[in-house]
Amino acid sequence: MMHAGILGGGQLGRMLLQAAANYPVVTHVLENDPHCPAAHLCHHFTLGDIRSFQDVLAFGRGLDVMTIEIEQVNLEALEQLEQEGVRVFPRPAALRQLRSKVDQKQFYAAQQLPSAPFVITQSKADLYAWIDRLPAIHKIGEGGYDGRGVVKIRSEADIPHAFDGPSVLENMVPFVRELSVIVAAMPSGEVVSYPPVEMVADPLLHQLDFQLAPASILAETADKAKQVAESLVRALQSPGLFAVELFETADGEILINETAPRVHNSGHHTLEAAYCSQFDMVWRILLDLPPGDTRLHHASAMINLVGAPNQAGPVAYVGLEQALTYPGAYVHLYGKAETRPGRKMGHFTLLATDASQLPEQIHQLKSLIQVNSRT
Amino acid sequence: MMHAGILGGGQLGRMLLQAAANYPVVTHVLENDPHCPAAHLCHHFTLGDIRSFQDVLAFGRGLDVMTIEIEQVNLEALEQLEQEGVRVFPRPAALRQLRSKVDQKQFYAAQQLPSAPFVITQSKADLYAWIDRLPAIHKIGEGGYDGRGVVKIRSEADIPHAFDGPSVLENMVPFVRELSVIVAAMPSGEVVSYPPVEMVADPLLHQLDFQLAPASILAETADKAKQVAESLVRALQSPGLFAVELFETADGEILINETAPRVHNSGHHTLEAAYCSQFDMVWRILLDLPPGDTRLHHASAMINLVGAPNQAGPVAYVGLEQALTYPGAYVHLYGKAETRPGRKMGHFTLLATDASQLPEQIHQLKSLIQVNSRT
Repeated sequence: MMHAGILGGGQLGRMLLQAAANYPVVTHVLENDPHCPAAHLCHHFTLGDIRSFQDVLAFGRGLDVMTIEIEQVNLEALEQLEQEGVRVFPRPAALRQLRSKVDQKQFYAAQQLPSAPFVITQSKADLYAWIDRLPAIHKIGEGGYDGRGVVKIRSEADIPHAFDGPSVLENMVPFVRELSVIVAAMPSGEVVSYPPVEMVADPLLHQLDFQLAPASILAETADKAKQVAESLVRALQSPGLFAVELFETADGEILINETAPRVHNSGHHTLEAAYCSQFDMVWRILLDLPPGDTRLHHASAMINLVGAPNQAGPVAYVGLEQALTYPGAYVHLYGKAETRPGRKMGHFTLLATDASQLPEQIHQLKSLIQVNSRT
Repeated sequence: MMHAGILGGGQLGRMLLQAAANYPVVTHVLENDPHCPAAHLCHHFTLGDIRSFQDVLAFGRGLDVMTIEIEQVNLEALEQLEQEGVRVFPRPAALRQLRSKVDQKQFYAAQQLPSAPFVITQSKADLYAWIDRLPAIHKIGEGGYDGRGVVKIRSEADIPHAFDGPSVLENMVPFVRELSVIVAAMPSGEVVSYPPVEMVADPLLHQLDFQLAPASILAETADKAKQVAESLVRALQSPGLFAVELFETADGEILINETAPRVHNSGHHTLEAAYCSQFDMVWRILLDLPPGDTRLHHASAMINLVGAPNQAGPVAYVGLEQALTYPGAYVHLYGKAETRPGRKMGHFTLLATDASQLPEQIHQLKSLIQVNSRT
């Protein structure tokens, strides 16, 4: 049986392992927390640091195939392992091209893939040379996550809030919607993608609040979004599953925002609403099996369940029973012992009978449940 | 968080644990094989004998709730644990009423539930007193499984093939179809059931070969099947998930064949074809959450993947890739290291676009894959 390793043991690893049990594979996880969401669902758990060259190298030796569930991993070790014959999907070269937002923007530009105009900055002082580009968005190259590491620079007065270190200063895109396309590149070279979804961010937390699938967009816009996302993935020349976040502009253009080389929050609806889930698809990639069916059989919403404000400590899901009485609602809890404000603790999928009612239903479902601390 | 224990670590436990990871629950498994299909998917694995009073008692103490994935467990320990305050679903009293085929037939008769006329025998010699009932089916009370423990007694000449020990001699039922209804009884008392499915046995192996969901039967027959199955489960007066196997006779009558107090092979299609799977439903029962939606969103077939004849040893799935290219096919492998002729190694679900084509598609899919030994 094939031995497959996952770097990272968070909720994405957890859902990958739920899907793994359908396939002929022995699973390994590397993570530095023995109580992480994925720890108890693999065959072999290794305590270690996914950013450590030695830890990743030791973990990977003897495995047949490896993947990641978080980007911040030791790429040098993965490159070494690939040279030693371990199949690493996505390939380390592709991970390197997507590693930082600076790398990503340069990759899009080099490949003539559509994304907002930008300049690279090395320090906040650099921004004084680009006053004529303001207002603009400043994004730190590495370490940003869920809204951290992104700031709007409206005018010179905001420059003190900008970032030091390699960053991207990007023109503001007057977008009407944020979209995401999950793309699967098979080892055979075949590339398939899921229908674009619409992402709605929480205005306070600056992270995904809910998502609608499929996005309510024109068929030609959906085609363009899929085409851009698939072109991007083809240019990476690597098997793997990728989430391509896109902007739809007022004039129907599609611009790439950023790319994650892994299963993604915007694809969680595929568990209930698509013929093949994004997690299932990863195993088909890793084990060199045929791609699954990316069509949706239901319209749906995906709603993140995050820790309530001012609540930190041992988690209590208040109203879970009421939420599960809501027609079409499915819960996925991530098994995290402690909640914190805004922490992703789980998600709901809501299957629609009438897609036009989803926004109102999301509102109703969210009002039923809260993630509190028991203390 | 609630601590839930499962007695048994086979494929049913495996699929229960895949579903458990969506819920707020810490999982425990008792099984005497550290490499069993469920061992690596629980939080806490305990090596022990599910038929041992001491092992089951020690395992259960400290748990909040328990269930089974196989009937052959120590009921006395479960009764003791229930007295000590552990919730055991199904309740031990219900398990006792279904424990042997003799118990089941007496329960159906006492509850005036429809099943074929029968007499109880204690030895094969007893059958000579019942020559006038032949031809009939002789079923051993305990220990029968997947066709073992059932024999047709056509005439006096067959009596030497009958069973010693408590057994049922049942009139032969001229049935046109074998049906199964999965019924969920919630702790609240609410009872819900899935649409009846049609089971087709392998004529050589005497075990489920494939299953069609929903069964191609009249709506009134389906209603009657659900009504009989739900009445049976209500009479058991216990929360739990039950599989009720039924005969449909030529004149449209429904007769109970036998009942399993657990998730069942005939319900595996619910993973892909129903809104709530039978495995998901068990967690809703154990954690006192609302029942899931038992409706099917696709017609489907479920095909068992069993070890090929004359093949025993380390397993090789020959043709898995081809089978997964078949439109609408989903695989579930059980992680068993060794194959044997007829051993259940996994199953396929086949989602239909046109239910009338399923029998032909089953035939095609089965021809693509074989479970062989590598040696």
